Amino acid sequence: MKVAVLGFGTVGVGVFEMLNNAEGLEQGTVLVRPGKNDKAFKRTTIEEITSDPEIWAVAEVMGGIEPAFSYAKAVMEAGKHFVTSNKALVAAKGIELSKIAYENNVGFLFSAACGGAVPILHNLSIARESDKILSVSGILNGTTNYMLDSMQRLGLEYEDALKDAQRLGYAEADPTADVSGMDALRKIMLACAVSYDMLPTEGLLNEGIENVTAEDVKHFMKKGYTCRLMVKGGRTDNSVYAYVEPVLFREGAPECSVLQNFNMACYEGLNSGRISIMGQGAGRYPTASAVLRDLSGILGGRKYMLRESCKAVKAENDKIKQLYYVRLPERMASLIPSESVDAEKGIARIITKPVSVLEMHSMAAKIRKDGGEVFFAAIGE
Amino acid sequence: MKVAVLGFGTVGVGVFEMLNNAEGLEQGTVLVRPGKNDKAFKRTTIEEITSDPEIWAVAEVMGGIEPAFSYAKAVMEAGKHFVTSNKALVAAKGIELSKIAYENNVGFLFSAACGGAVPILHNLSIARESDKILSVSGILNGTTNYMLDSMQRLGLEYEDALKDAQRLGYAEADPTADVSGMDALRKIMLACAVSYDMLPTEGLLNEGIENVTAEDVKHFMKKGYTCRLMVKGGRTDNSVYAYVEPVLFREGAPECSVLQNFNMACYEGLNSGRISIMGQGAGRYPTASAVLRDLSGILGGRKYMLRESCKAVKAENDKIKQLYYVRLPERMASLIPSESVDAEKGIARIITKPVSVLEMHSMAAKIRKDGGEVFFAAIGE
Repeated sequence: MKVAVLGFGTVGVGVFEMLNNAEGLEQGTVLVRPGKNDKAFKRTTIEEITSDPEIWAVAEVMGGIEPAFSYAKAVMEAGKHFVTSNKALVAAKGIELSKIAYENNVGFLFSAACGGAVPILHNLSIARESDKILSVSGILNGTTNYMLDSMQRLGLEYEDALKDAQRLGYAEADPTADVSGMDALRKIMLACAVSYDMLPTEGLLNEGIENVTAEDVKHFMKKGYTCRLMVKGGRTDNSVYAYVEPVLFREGAPECSVLQNFNMACYEGLNSGRISIMGQGAGRYPTASAVLRDLSGILGGRKYMLRESCKAVKAENDKIKQLYYVRLPERMASLIPSESVDAEKGIARIITKPVSVLEMHSMAAKIRKDGGEVFFAAIGE
Repeated sequence: MKVAVLGFGTVGVGVFEMLNNAEGLEQGTVLVRPGKNDKAFKRTTIEEITSDPEIWAVAEVMGGIEPAFSYAKAVMEAGKHFVTSNKALVAAKGIELSKIAYENNVGFLFSAACGGAVPILHNLSIARESDKILSVSGILNGTTNYMLDSMQRLGLEYEDALKDAQRLGYAEADPTADVSGMDALRKIMLACAVSYDMLPTEGLLNEGIENVTAEDVKHFMKKGYTCRLMVKGGRTDNSVYAYVEPVLFREGAPECSVLQNFNMACYEGLNSGRISIMGQGAGRYPTASAVLRDLSGILGGRKYMLRESCKAVKAENDKIKQLYYVRLPERMASLIPSESVDAEKGIARIITKPVSVLEMHSMAAKIRKDGGEVFFAAIGE
């Protein structure tokens, strides 16, 4: 079955190459965007792809919402299956795309948009059929994991860890989406949609790692903790919770053994218990392997990971209470309900009383608005 | 779709209960073996099951080769799908069962036979369609992992660790299949069959943990190592390698964070890179969740994890060379090609030169034949 590829960047080249060796699949045409790498030997336009009866499916790996969304729509309306690695697209337009897919009876899968080679969305979509997914969590951003790991194991400052990540191709020139937690947030949005038929589009919270310092990391290490940027999602009575924030783990926790730019995705099934999957969350071949897995899945009859009933919801992040580590100016320490305070040179390090995720993120926003620098991290179980 | 359950022990009860809540599935009859728990409220015979047009599939969770094999054959010849958690059955009769399944166009899946809730066989069967599986490995026996972990973290002697495992229901009254590595060996046989269309039935090697002592474990800890019982499998030029043996891992390796009776299964894909899956490898609901996943899979059109071309092969365990730790009587130390020897009170602890898996297992067998006590473990990367 011939597969066209939209986008010929890092992942696109990988998908195109791998199509040569996958069972039942073969290379179709490649759409290269104007101004992009033009060495592709099979260039084409979206019109040529949608009108080519030989093209069975299309893999979109160009990123961004437009023209990806218009292309996806055109492809599916032309009766061709659509798979994508584009998390921004699915987070913003997943429900609309799903509707188009069902209307046209074509496959729509997006494993590669969450976890790279880690098959978390696939496994969630399988598990939910016969089990109840109680929660989803994980380390789903390799860039920030690489940075936090370098800060801990190599003792780097934040800026140096970021520069290393950029030099190695793990971080973009503009690293905002990664370090702000936005990239990870999109992934937990998708995981909720697959697990619960609810795509949270409002009420989401994301705290990244922009505010962590070498000093913070040293402090965690002294106390036996390792810091990781975690996604968390799960059911509430009427909706879901979904947020991203740094979490401190005690030595020996599986999260501590997730090094460099690796990912680890976990879910808790009512019957299965906790299942954790570790692997490469990014990179040409790992991400392309997820795109190919989706194409094989459609070939085998598994066409959807979102259900027709999936709807947009507002996330409820005020239900879960936990303890946090907070570092802030000593003069603002009283703004936080604290269990213990450790102050030195005008800096306070606080362990909070149990507060909800929403409360903690709101308090940090308020302190920042008032000109205070603050870093916080939940204290893991 | 109605599902009959063969066997009403730990897992059978779990499967029966879960059928109530799984999408598209419902409780059928239950076959309870004579002399077994007779509280099942829907007892039946195999003839009643095979002749009941309402039964769509049968889940076999009774264990053992007979009557499980005869029942499986009867079920599939009656046109009903067959799923099982029975690793002994599939290791011994998998190819025959697969042939019957294809001939009768019914599903035959056995996720629960390897890894409990850990979906390693499912994920291997998916991954191999679009990627090349280079190797499979893992901690696939929860009983021995519980024992090794207790010996390390609680400082227990072997006998006490075994008694604890028995008291907690992790080990059988006769623990031979677990501690000898035979249970784990059957699992890597199945993983090879799913990954490579080759079920290794000869040339297999399994070294268990019967010979490990509290003294060995203390010695490993002093050197910064954690001992785990590992399965290993992969392609050779003409066949596969497949064996079970203890392995020593350096602090920080993911295997060290697999505690208690948890399992971790890994595979290395040419494109995906290394994927590791951790979870509960046994227990009522975790194992039943894998049985249910298979039933849902068949409902969704995924009927096979073994291919029609799967054949029995002789494993080739002489290709991989590695270093081993060996503890044996000092007087026999010269029988092992050693890199370093550390002798005290008549006991030698050796680090070997690189030797093949086959050589190491053969040398240990020879030493035992000559009346020497020996424990060995590969030194992990």
